Amino acid sequence: MSDPEAWNPMSHPKNDTFLRALLRQPTPYTPVWIMRQAGRYLPEYNATRARAGDFMSLCRSPDLATEVTLQPLARYPLDAAILFSDILTVPDAMGLGLYFAEGEGPRFERPLRDEWEINDLAPVDPWGNLRYVMDAVSQIRKALANEVPLIGFAGSPFTLACYMIEGKGGTDFERVKTMLYGRPDLMHKILAVNAASVTTYLNAQIESGAQAVMLFDSWGGALSQAAYLEFSLAYMEQIVSGLTRERDGQRVPVIVFTKGGGQWLEKIAAIGCDAVGLDWTVDIRDARARVGKSVALQGNLDPSILLTTPDVVQREVGKVLTSFGAGSGHVFNLGHGISRLTPPENVAALVDAVHDQSRIFH
Amino acid sequence: MSDPEAWNPMSHPKNDTFLRALLRQPTPYTPVWIMRQAGRYLPEYNATRARAGDFMSLCRSPDLATEVTLQPLARYPLDAAILFSDILTVPDAMGLGLYFAEGEGPRFERPLRDEWEINDLAPVDPWGNLRYVMDAVSQIRKALANEVPLIGFAGSPFTLACYMIEGKGGTDFERVKTMLYGRPDLMHKILAVNAASVTTYLNAQIESGAQAVMLFDSWGGALSQAAYLEFSLAYMEQIVSGLTRERDGQRVPVIVFTKGGGQWLEKIAAIGCDAVGLDWTVDIRDARARVGKSVALQGNLDPSILLTTPDVVQREVGKVLTSFGAGSGHVFNLGHGISRLTPPENVAALVDAVHDQSRIFH
Repeated sequence: MSDPEAWNPMSHPKNDTFLRALLRQPTPYTPVWIMRQAGRYLPEYNATRARAGDFMSLCRSPDLATEVTLQPLARYPLDAAILFSDILTVPDAMGLGLYFAEGEGPRFERPLRDEWEINDLAPVDPWGNLRYVMDAVSQIRKALANEVPLIGFAGSPFTLACYMIEGKGGTDFERVKTMLYGRPDLMHKILAVNAASVTTYLNAQIESGAQAVMLFDSWGGALSQAAYLEFSLAYMEQIVSGLTRERDGQRVPVIVFTKGGGQWLEKIAAIGCDAVGLDWTVDIRDARARVGKSVALQGNLDPSILLTTPDVVQREVGKVLTSFGAGSGHVFNLGHGISRLTPPENVAALVDAVHDQSRIFH
Repeated sequence: MSDPEAWNPMSHPKNDTFLRALLRQPTPYTPVWIMRQAGRYLPEYNATRARAGDFMSLCRSPDLATEVTLQPLARYPLDAAILFSDILTVPDAMGLGLYFAEGEGPRFERPLRDEWEINDLAPVDPWGNLRYVMDAVSQIRKALANEVPLIGFAGSPFTLACYMIEGKGGTDFERVKTMLYGRPDLMHKILAVNAASVTTYLNAQIESGAQAVMLFDSWGGALSQAAYLEFSLAYMEQIVSGLTRERDGQRVPVIVFTKGGGQWLEKIAAIGCDAVGLDWTVDIRDARARVGKSVALQGNLDPSILLTTPDVVQREVGKVLTSFGAGSGHVFNLGHGISRLTPPENVAALVDAVHDQSRIFH
């Protein structure tokens, strides 16, 4: 990764298996990356984070974000890098005051509680107080030297709204659903601001060098189908239709992932994205039969399998690959973010197993 | 409910709409009951529980269990009663030491940690240290005086195993999945003991007077499809095939509910049950198209809707009824247990709305 010529942003990555698989073009093997691949299961990540002081300082420093983005690539032959950041940088930039309570996950100091706060909400300018993200994207692209492509990302409007309204992540969403059912007009106001923000935010990432982008809808699966379509998927569709899809003559693929969205794959595949992320509850063979003619699929090993042994990991990787079957259009990944309890050697076993075992399917 | 002749256990309930709907027979309206209908949203329940001292004392006293079982029926014209108890009485009877930490949900003092503990596990005798449950069932039947039918219930083998292995409920199931993938032989041993226990336990409830039974699979939805079929559904099928299905000339219907099981409805409907419970993420119109020719459906309003207002509740009840459409085979319920934050007047609005608005569909 040291060739000074190579990081011309116009250049195509040397390893383009990830981009090709997203466009359902032939590849010699199935590409693989891992959600939260730069994270707490890696001792070198924990060391950098300790040096940074806290999680947000890590996100806000392009140098440190670049460092941790590259860490898993130094260990494993992954086929893509993903920007180190957090989906909550967007509501943080709206002024809600993101902080991380130790051992308790993200919190907002000023969650949306009153109607006037919702009426006052305005879309973010990604080149304003989110410029640190764009600086990180440019710097990571430079450091990657076009070895593998860089993925940008954002949270879905509904998932961001959950945090903005509840003030934290959770499982009941009592405030969110009370608003959604009791004051849908207010919920739509928040979602419209979020959708506009995420669109310009992702376009700025693409402008800065992201070669593919992914929308993370962590909480859409907590909704009824009707509510999901109206309050989550419709806004993701709006974003997808507003994204820059070609840059320097290259297609910029879009991946949409709703955790718990297995029942709605046909509907997700129809919003104009290039690929659909699958959580581990979905049978990938069924998913391919349902939507694999229109989109690529990304996923979907249960992250808990990485808590076992390399032997078990290899066996279970084989099952996912066999289930997808022959042909292109599959990006291997977990069905959710990697657990911080994962032994790093199991990740090595996973990446090698995907590369080795997938060749016969291509 | 005071006619001394009426509680002959041979008698059919005066209001048999619930039993008829489960068998897809005509009814004048859609019957309704509510998961956890005897619970903390009712001030009278909280008063009885305070008197009992703790949750397990309430479960272990047939007098108090009868009292709280009847409380929601005194307030609302519900079409069924459900035994007041807890799914964890079964592993408690196996010697794991159930207790409830205030504000933290159920815990076991002695979760399964070592292989010898799993090998020593033996099926429960429901007429032994679970006799208090059978006494409660008999006493509730007597008190109900055949006004409405009584539902018995148990947890699924997999859901019980989650608590037995983790020692508590949770969302990651790290120990459970490590065992399931790394030592499937041990997991199958636990599940076999649980399935044998639940079969005799439910048959004893039927013997004592339960007129329908329900299997609650709260955590099967956390599995991949392949793991769900092997480690949860197969054992529920074993239970269903071992249940007493006729008593005193009446069919005893079986309802199977996997929360998060919407992707697998066809497979659940095929295990021999009479009805499938739906969580709120499932579109009940789709579900009916997929499996409604073979089983009845129970559900599936989002419990969060009960946190709003009577107007919103009525509107959303109407949407579920319209989505199911005309004809029999629907038991109205929530898609999960009622929240303790529910205003009791919203439950009145729900029950009345179901009864009033459903008549045009029958």
